[in-house]
Amino acid sequence: MIVKLPEEEHPHKAFGWGAKSQSGVLSPLKFSRRATGEKDVKLKVLYCGICHSDLHMSKNDFGFSKFPLVPGHEIMGVVTDVGDKVEKFKVGDRVGVGCVVGSCRSCDNCKNDLENYCSQMILTYSGTYYDGTTTQGGFSDIMVTDEHFVVRIPDSIPLDAGAPLLCAGMTVYSPLRYYGLDKPGTHLGVVGLGGLGHMAVKFAKAMGVKVTVISTSPKKKQEAIERLGADSFLISHDQDQMQGATRTLDGIIDTVSAVHPLQPLLSLLKSHGKLVLVGAPEGKPLELPVFPLIMGRKLVGGSITGGMKETQEMFDFAAKHSITADIEVIPMDYVNTAFERLKRADVRYRFVIDIVNTLKSHN
Amino acid sequence: MIVKLPEEEHPHKAFGWGAKSQSGVLSPLKFSRRATGEKDVKLKVLYCGICHSDLHMSKNDFGFSKFPLVPGHEIMGVVTDVGDKVEKFKVGDRVGVGCVVGSCRSCDNCKNDLENYCSQMILTYSGTYYDGTTTQGGFSDIMVTDEHFVVRIPDSIPLDAGAPLLCAGMTVYSPLRYYGLDKPGTHLGVVGLGGLGHMAVKFAKAMGVKVTVISTSPKKKQEAIERLGADSFLISHDQDQMQGATRTLDGIIDTVSAVHPLQPLLSLLKSHGKLVLVGAPEGKPLELPVFPLIMGRKLVGGSITGGMKETQEMFDFAAKHSITADIEVIPMDYVNTAFERLKRADVRYRFVIDIVNTLKSHN
Repeated sequence: MIVKLPEEEHPHKAFGWGAKSQSGVLSPLKFSRRATGEKDVKLKVLYCGICHSDLHMSKNDFGFSKFPLVPGHEIMGVVTDVGDKVEKFKVGDRVGVGCVVGSCRSCDNCKNDLENYCSQMILTYSGTYYDGTTTQGGFSDIMVTDEHFVVRIPDSIPLDAGAPLLCAGMTVYSPLRYYGLDKPGTHLGVVGLGGLGHMAVKFAKAMGVKVTVISTSPKKKQEAIERLGADSFLISHDQDQMQGATRTLDGIIDTVSAVHPLQPLLSLLKSHGKLVLVGAPEGKPLELPVFPLIMGRKLVGGSITGGMKETQEMFDFAAKHSITADIEVIPMDYVNTAFERLKRADVRYRFVIDIVNTLKSHN
Repeated sequence: MIVKLPEEEHPHKAFGWGAKSQSGVLSPLKFSRRATGEKDVKLKVLYCGICHSDLHMSKNDFGFSKFPLVPGHEIMGVVTDVGDKVEKFKVGDRVGVGCVVGSCRSCDNCKNDLENYCSQMILTYSGTYYDGTTTQGGFSDIMVTDEHFVVRIPDSIPLDAGAPLLCAGMTVYSPLRYYGLDKPGTHLGVVGLGGLGHMAVKFAKAMGVKVTVISTSPKKKQEAIERLGADSFLISHDQDQMQGATRTLDGIIDTVSAVHPLQPLLSLLKSHGKLVLVGAPEGKPLELPVFPLIMGRKLVGGSITGGMKETQEMFDFAAKHSITADIEVIPMDYVNTAFERLKRADVRYRFVIDIVNTLKSHN
């Protein structure tokens, strides 16, 4: 077996920043991209958001990282080449690539536009592509992606502040729809006001939903209400506030990834209320009190990103309602500092790397 | 304040078996029932099923029992008197009374025929009725109940084998409907083959659903398949069997009330699968693994009995499909032995007390 170097594996030279080991430190990296296949779209990457899972994957926290690893799955760019059989895109189109770049295309999930739940789904990086090579993400100059997994970005969505919609946005938009928490008259709780949480507030408000933000941090109250448009704010460790809001919510989007108690959140739900977990916890189970589930017919569910059709719908909805993420644009060589700040939740609310202006090849 | 003896509280003399303390031992008890109000139905009790919660309540395991306590909420009888404004029933009608005898009738739950989730719902026994008196259950000769909380028993449903439909039946029928696990083509798991579980198999099969029983007890396999009509059987501690059934189920009705691991059950579910808990655990939380919920958009929900409209629908469905419980009919004075056997799960599948022939007043 001949092991090829990353930069010799494919015909297109590529350059980015990646982790060479589970130290998780990113540094400049030469690698390569496959030739543009007949259904492939080649794009120049302009911006790429940073998701908390980029940090986890760079450190192999989930146990399935493959090094060298180029993170990034909130990828925005412009089409520079298309394969012969590409139908949806042409050179110059503004496009995005999210968390998934392949799936079996034939199972029930794929047939139902739920490629993200296909058991053979291929992640944008550290996935194994059909040709056996390892996929690499968007902290890089170019991407080559099957057009099925590329979305069109509406003209009114800026490519920097729109990037986080691909993961953070989709992660909260999809469960609002699936769990029926998208109707005017619904009262939604959003737990945690970070990258995911602030998107949940924006989408829910645009859907006509009443939103209460639940946070450990009193200092976020003003911003939640005045800037993001939330209707009210609860401090999760203030028992009087929490008690006063008992049985007021129809649903909750819980973005917290640390281990935390569910009982106080279940108490906030009316009967038939839905608590939806979207923050990936680090392996540890949560404690599930069963009595509230039974006595109030409540449920605890989960959700992860969304299928391609829904991702396109989400962008069209975002364009219609002028929804983008609140971002801090950073240069490529700031990424390790950004990771450190992300660990401390020190960002409002998403870092986006200015790839086009700051990723410099040194060769 | 004048405290009246139970037998002097109301004008109708009543007689039954009840627990006088949280020893949980039942013995003959004189008490009384209210006069038949204008919307009330008075009935002669003929049969009453024994539910596991009768055992818990008799011992004050949930902490809100009021003694003396006459258990029983699977009550079947014949109408002997009706109030002036009763519209639905007449003397001689075959009727049932289940877990709930009152609710506020004006909240959202009540307006949506979900009286069982009304926050002012009044339990059939150990509840506080509108007049401030404590409700008493069906291990007794007569009942007086608001007609709204009385159901008509179809002619083809026998009053003994039909009694457990009022609680055990409803407890599994309602979540099959609510969680959409009632469609032909659905593959359902039923965990635990007891009073609730055997009803779940019968209802699901009548709905055209494919059923797999999951049990700790290999000896129940033959009965599950040959007698109850289940399609397949898994022994929950047989890892090969469980592994082989990974991702095959659309939903699970979990009737187990002891603390047990949810991870193996979540693994049996396809993506978007629903694990519904209906067994009341004794206060302890379960461990909830979050990854399967998120990665497969699965949910863990609960459910408790059903509203009055759905209870009537369930009886009509049961009549149409000739569904009753498999029961062991016992005399009233066997009830303490029955409780002991229930603790050991030594019953196939529900005890029903032959009240009319065996409850003898000794005065």
